[in-house]
Amino acid sequence: MSGNRAVAYKSPGVVEVIDTEYPTFELKDGPGVNPLNVGRKVPHGVILRTVTTNICGSDQHMVRGRTTAPQNLVLGHEITGEVVEVGSDVEFIKVGDIVSVPFNISCGRCRNCKEGKTGICLNVNPDRPGSAYGYVDMGGWVGGQAEYVLVPYADWNLLKFPDRDQALEKIMDLTMLSDIFPTGFHGAVTANVGVGSTVYIAGAGPVGLAAAAGAQLLGAAVVIVGDMNEDRLAQARSFGCETVNVGAGDPRDQIEQLLGVPEVDCGIDAVGFEAKGHGKDASHEAPATVLNSLMDLTAAGGSLGIPGLYVTGDPGGIDEAAQRGSLSLSLGTGWAKSLSFTTGQCPVMKYNRQLMMAILHDKVQIAKAVNAKAIPLEDAPRGYAEFDAGAATKYVLNPNGYVRN
Amino acid sequence: MSGNRAVAYKSPGVVEVIDTEYPTFELKDGPGVNPLNVGRKVPHGVILRTVTTNICGSDQHMVRGRTTAPQNLVLGHEITGEVVEVGSDVEFIKVGDIVSVPFNISCGRCRNCKEGKTGICLNVNPDRPGSAYGYVDMGGWVGGQAEYVLVPYADWNLLKFPDRDQALEKIMDLTMLSDIFPTGFHGAVTANVGVGSTVYIAGAGPVGLAAAAGAQLLGAAVVIVGDMNEDRLAQARSFGCETVNVGAGDPRDQIEQLLGVPEVDCGIDAVGFEAKGHGKDASHEAPATVLNSLMDLTAAGGSLGIPGLYVTGDPGGIDEAAQRGSLSLSLGTGWAKSLSFTTGQCPVMKYNRQLMMAILHDKVQIAKAVNAKAIPLEDAPRGYAEFDAGAATKYVLNPNGYVRN
Amino acid sequence: MSGNRAVAYKSPGVVEVIDTEYPTFELKDGPGVNPLNVGRKVPHGVILRTVTTNICGSDQHMVRGRTTAPQNLVLGHEITGEVVEVGSDVEFIKVGDIVSVPFNISCGRCRNCKEGKTGICLNVNPDRPGSAYGYVDMGGWVGGQAEYVLVPYADWNLLKFPDRDQALEKIMDLTMLSDIFPTGFHGAVTANVGVGSTVYIAGAGPVGLAAAAGAQLLGAAVVIVGDMNEDRLAQARSFGCETVNVGAGDPRDQIEQLLGVPEVDCGIDAVGFEAKGHGKDASHEAPATVLNSLMDLTAAGGSLGIPGLYVTGDPGGIDEAAQRGSLSLSLGTGWAKSLSFTTGQCPVMKYNRQLMMAILHDKVQIAKAVNAKAIPLEDAPRGYAEFDAGAATKYVLNPNGYVRN
Amino acid sequence: MSGNRAVAYKSPGVVEVIDTEYPTFELKDGPGVNPLNVGRKVPHGVILRTVTTNICGSDQHMVRGRTTAPQNLVLGHEITGEVVEVGSDVEFIKVGDIVSVPFNISCGRCRNCKEGKTGICLNVNPDRPGSAYGYVDMGGWVGGQAEYVLVPYADWNLLKFPDRDQALEKIMDLTMLSDIFPTGFHGAVTANVGVGSTVYIAGAGPVGLAAAAGAQLLGAAVVIVGDMNEDRLAQARSFGCETVNVGAGDPRDQIEQLLGVPEVDCGIDAVGFEAKGHGKDASHEAPATVLNSLMDLTAAGGSLGIPGLYVTGDPGGIDEAAQRGSLSLSLGTGWAKSLSFTTGQCPVMKYNRQLMMAILHDKVQIAKAVNAKAIPLEDAPRGYAEFDAGAATKYVLNPNGYVRN
Repeated sequence: MSGNRAVAYKSPGVVEVIDTEYPTFELKDGPGVNPLNVGRKVPHGVILRTVTTNICGSDQHMVRGRTTAPQNLVLGHEITGEVVEVGSDVEFIKVGDIVSVPFNISCGRCRNCKEGKTGICLNVNPDRPGSAYGYVDMGGWVGGQAEYVLVPYADWNLLKFPDRDQALEKIMDLTMLSDIFPTGFHGAVTANVGVGSTVYIAGAGPVGLAAAAGAQLLGAAVVIVGDMNEDRLAQARSFGCETVNVGAGDPRDQIEQLLGVPEVDCGIDAVGFEAKGHGKDASHEAPATVLNSLMDLTAAGGSLGIPGLYVTGDPGGIDEAAQRGSLSLSLGTGWAKSLSFTTGQCPVMKYNRQLMMAILHDKVQIAKAVNAKAIPLEDAPRGYAEFDAGAATKYVLNPNGYVRN
Repeated sequence: MSGNRAVAYKSPGVVEVIDTEYPTFELKDGPGVNPLNVGRKVPHGVILRTVTTNICGSDQHMVRGRTTAPQNLVLGHEITGEVVEVGSDVEFIKVGDIVSVPFNISCGRCRNCKEGKTGICLNVNPDRPGSAYGYVDMGGWVGGQAEYVLVPYADWNLLKFPDRDQALEKIMDLTMLSDIFPTGFHGAVTANVGVGSTVYIAGAGPVGLAAAAGAQLLGAAVVIVGDMNEDRLAQARSFGCETVNVGAGDPRDQIEQLLGVPEVDCGIDAVGFEAKGHGKDASHEAPATVLNSLMDLTAAGGSLGIPGLYVTGDPGGIDEAAQRGSLSLSLGTGWAKSLSFTTGQCPVMKYNRQLMMAILHDKVQIAKAVNAKAIPLEDAPRGYAEFDAGAATKYVLNPNGYVRN
Repeated sequence: MSGNRAVAYKSPGVVEVIDTEYPTFELKDGPGVNPLNVGRKVPHGVILRTVTTNICGSDQHMVRGRTTAPQNLVLGHEITGEVVEVGSDVEFIKVGDIVSVPFNISCGRCRNCKEGKTGICLNVNPDRPGSAYGYVDMGGWVGGQAEYVLVPYADWNLLKFPDRDQALEKIMDLTMLSDIFPTGFHGAVTANVGVGSTVYIAGAGPVGLAAAAGAQLLGAAVVIVGDMNEDRLAQARSFGCETVNVGAGDPRDQIEQLLGVPEVDCGIDAVGFEAKGHGKDASHEAPATVLNSLMDLTAAGGSLGIPGLYVTGDPGGIDEAAQRGSLSLSLGTGWAKSLSFTTGQCPVMKYNRQLMMAILHDKVQIAKAVNAKAIPLEDAPRGYAEFDAGAATKYVLNPNGYVRN
Repeated sequence: MSGNRAVAYKSPGVVEVIDTEYPTFELKDGPGVNPLNVGRKVPHGVILRTVTTNICGSDQHMVRGRTTAPQNLVLGHEITGEVVEVGSDVEFIKVGDIVSVPFNISCGRCRNCKEGKTGICLNVNPDRPGSAYGYVDMGGWVGGQAEYVLVPYADWNLLKFPDRDQALEKIMDLTMLSDIFPTGFHGAVTANVGVGSTVYIAGAGPVGLAAAAGAQLLGAAVVIVGDMNEDRLAQARSFGCETVNVGAGDPRDQIEQLLGVPEVDCGIDAVGFEAKGHGKDASHEAPATVLNSLMDLTAAGGSLGIPGLYVTGDPGGIDEAAQRGSLSLSLGTGWAKSLSFTTGQCPVMKYNRQLMMAILHDKVQIAKAVNAKAIPLEDAPRGYAEFDAGAATKYVLNPNGYVRN
């Protein structure tokens, strides 16, 4: 138990699998650890042997060098594991439990946690509300793309699967509960998707596809996904979505052909700040494109769910405004239509238990929807590269061989 | 009954009281009437003898020449009246009723009306969802700053006061039910104000003051109003609000002095697109200032209510982006804090009955809060001028002498 | 156009198809018409040629002689039709439209309608809030199990199908929008069914089956239906429900076998006051059985949706308490578990548009779920008899041959 | 620190102040402790020196001998204290903090707690969901009408007051945050009280008065309180409520005199199972009286909040049905009016922070509303007796002299 292989960021475009230390019940100093968190005791934590840990689109922001992530930062916030050690304060989680880890770390003891707002916990990140494993400027909690990982406040944070065998059998679906399935679902919920809704989702990456699966689960009548990557659009069509290729022109016309009207009830932004233009502008970044387009495409009285990440600063932005995180938004368009907007990290705990129930009772096939593919931990660099190149695949790392192919 | 004195827009900066026609149960051609609405029959309407009709901040956008309002457009969408004639299809409203008219005109028969979204009715404005009396590009329904006015779909739109004498006694409060009290209240509701909330309201004009009164009625612990007009701030203090002068610097510091923390639970934008900068930038327009400031001042997990008007185009905007209605928003700041945003016209019918009850049972003094002042119809030009000059006064026109001073 | 064949209540156990008058735009005197409604003008109404009209379980209460329904009352409140005449005040509904009629009649002009509470409209029934077609003590609006029927406040009440051919093709599904599909769905919504919920529905009649289909559409993980009629339970299993036979003993044990725990998240009462006992008590009426059982079976913190009808008086009740409409409820059981309860007529307009969208886009097969079967109008007496005998069938009358078998 | 004076139940009608042990971080065996809880370690707890601890109406159920409470059970679940020792797992609560203790004990780690349903925590009471200090059949957590008390899961449960001096200055108000203020407020919230509502509250005891203060804080237009104790009604009138004396006849008529209509929007049951009849039946218990009356008095579409306690068994009930906890309810009355009902313990944590803010900023005077009176711990028997005799007073025990009269 002395070592711990883990995926680390090395430099722009480069990730490597490196040797790191096996976790203890303390947050030690290391790359990206906030000084105020160094030495923090974690008797309320557990150590997990990782069952699965997925590569996320938001990891790519760091890997592309668009952030200040330090060298050797261990990546990974989408974690499912088996409990191998429990801290002295852990009362209900037991060794041997198979558990899903919400990507947002929360204490279960602050005002926001008590209100269910676990994406903006006040006690885990000295810089500002909200935290995550293996992420720059999020407090320094070590990432889980590794053989082992420490999870604090385990009784609060962890979702225990009711049956070990069942859990391992459905692991490729259940692994999506740590982030993208709740995140996509949150996008759908905050876009006010309900039975009979028409929905447009910008972006056919894993979060967009998860939003589409979530919208279907919520009873949407029609789910339309827009992207300019044909492989990803084909993936969306594989489970019953309609699609529009935004590289081929304004989605408004294509939506009108599908629905008879050029507008939808609900809009979801599953792209975020690295958006590109539409139609002939599709080759360069245009960070306000998606939101402006969604205001245009969403009918009066509608809601926009915005799980796609927007940042306060983007050193790699295309111009000075983008670098400051400023977007040029046609808010008047939204105002005239009485639209509402919900932003921010998904509070995973709000949804993961109910989505687990839907998976366990075969009401949704999220692994198929996002085209999940398990690969060895050592192949993580390849997974990052293929994902960045636009593969219509959700890469699931399998560090300890729990996933049998 | 042959004539009808009315307040009309003449040219930038100029309004006049002119002679117009007494209304009939038909929408006739005239300044600003949408061609598709010309000749529309209104058997479902009633004709009101105006009891009171208020000058609104949004009227000023037209009067300042910031819109395409045509000459002789009759102004006025804040109307309270006595029913003097009823159309053939009106069943429950009777001659002699004293009624409040929601500024948004709605049909009570479309999908949006059935869902309570009366600010975006689909059947009254051929251009787009939503309408109002006496307003440019809103379908052409004649304004109510006049002796008489036609109100369509009267059974649906009108709020009848239970007792005539009581209504006339409290008329200076009840007159605020047609627009600014519900509009301010909607700002508070959509900012998620509840018992114990801390609230910051940008803007101490009538809507801001109404939002403050509304927030108090909802049980807010602390209501802070920001403006740079000291008279208006004094008005806010007169009914228990805290204030910050945004001309004196960043409101963040002043809020910290008041609350011990530099953030509030709830933010309300009662300014809109004609916002000016803060501190030393307070002398020129900076349309994104208020929203960027509210994202900064509102705590993580909070909500922003945005009753302040944002437009799709503003010919008088300070630069090309403003003229297109584009705002440079630091959306990443809001995203990191998981903020939500609600825009649009207040659907007055959602709130006016309950606010009437609060007025009739002396739970709120909205006339005092906004410093309501009745003036003769013929003095409307003076009222417009004083209001535009920053008077801390809500001007109520009294065309038929119902208000006894 | 001179006649109108219609299904009428004659005496306990007896319905007949009789000749009645073709409707006009006035509510004339007749069996069951409230004196205060006699002569009421209906210029806001339309006359429909009936496309389909279903027999409802609540009709059976009258036919069994459990009410004071008068002889020759024309039955029928589940109506879909084609508009053949429009009143002078109707603006948006046109001749030729194929429309669904919500069974609750509402004015669209009172406080309750404005709040979306169309099941308790204040203006259509002089006796008390709420009304329906062809029902005792509901104001006297003539029933729709007929060739033609008058629908008041047509612009407000009617749901127009977007395409005539599509509507007629899916008519066996769309006919359920007038009552049982929204009613069952309302039971599920008010029981707080959502994605991942476990649900128990008492009663496998058409409303229970519609509640089950509705719960599935809302994303429930497991839907369990209880009844003692094996045909109806088989019907429930045909679309993926689990079932328990309450004649075989306490449902608690059977639920535990299905779920591993003896409780569900959500409980729905689709039986009402004519409930019978469980297990060996299954042969006689025990009106509080279902509610007491649901309090036992629903987990702490759960909600009970109660679309099943409870009455204020039941002359045929088994004892004096039942005749007064008093139930012996173990409310302490519910209190200890912090349960909540929602009763009353479903406000159909709140749901019918969204459920129509789900039908038109093939997200639900409600006709199959309730085993809908079209029969000629003249066969109504046979339909009533078979339904009363426990057939697992929803009978749809086809008075004008629109339904092609 | 070796002893701990505490109020104990001795026998029906008798409470005494006895010597007990100073608490440790373990739940030891003792009167009423559930065997499965004996020896439970509480490293997550703190020991409080009691600042205030109130006598509650629900304590009276035990003292009257209506339960199976054992001799020497230490009473008291309304607790405010100063932290004097913290367990090893407590991270954020510190020695010296002045804190309010929610009467419902909850773990902060189970499904229900994560959903905010802290009144039905799954991990603190081996018998069933939900627990409380010093209460029969609630797990055996020792009561707080004592000098010292142990509070488990302290980081989760406790509400820390921001400033010690301010807290002690307003202590007579803040002491109501542990139970009755949130409980009454919950009654108002679940009765759907909002701005402009008309409200009827059955019962002018402390919970009824707190519900009235809560309804006012929520913006109610009219709050009517019913009781047959004139002192308590006078207390209600002292802060602006209307009152009806239910001993003088049906409240319906009195409500009509007050409002012009015989119904209210919202009904609150602040009495529970020990209800007595109305009018000439006012001298004997009639446990269904209040709920049947509220169904009659609440307008169609309304909601009933039921903070008043209903039990699963009442050995002292007036008849066999009452002893089983069965109530004879006219549910048909409620069903015809589409009423909804919310029962159960108030989840205090859902409300206590916001109500604290309202108190600290002088938006409510809850101590005055309930006529709070501090008495020495040793005078507890007198307080119990006077309260039981109907004094319009809320008794606050002052065991350690923090309250200066």
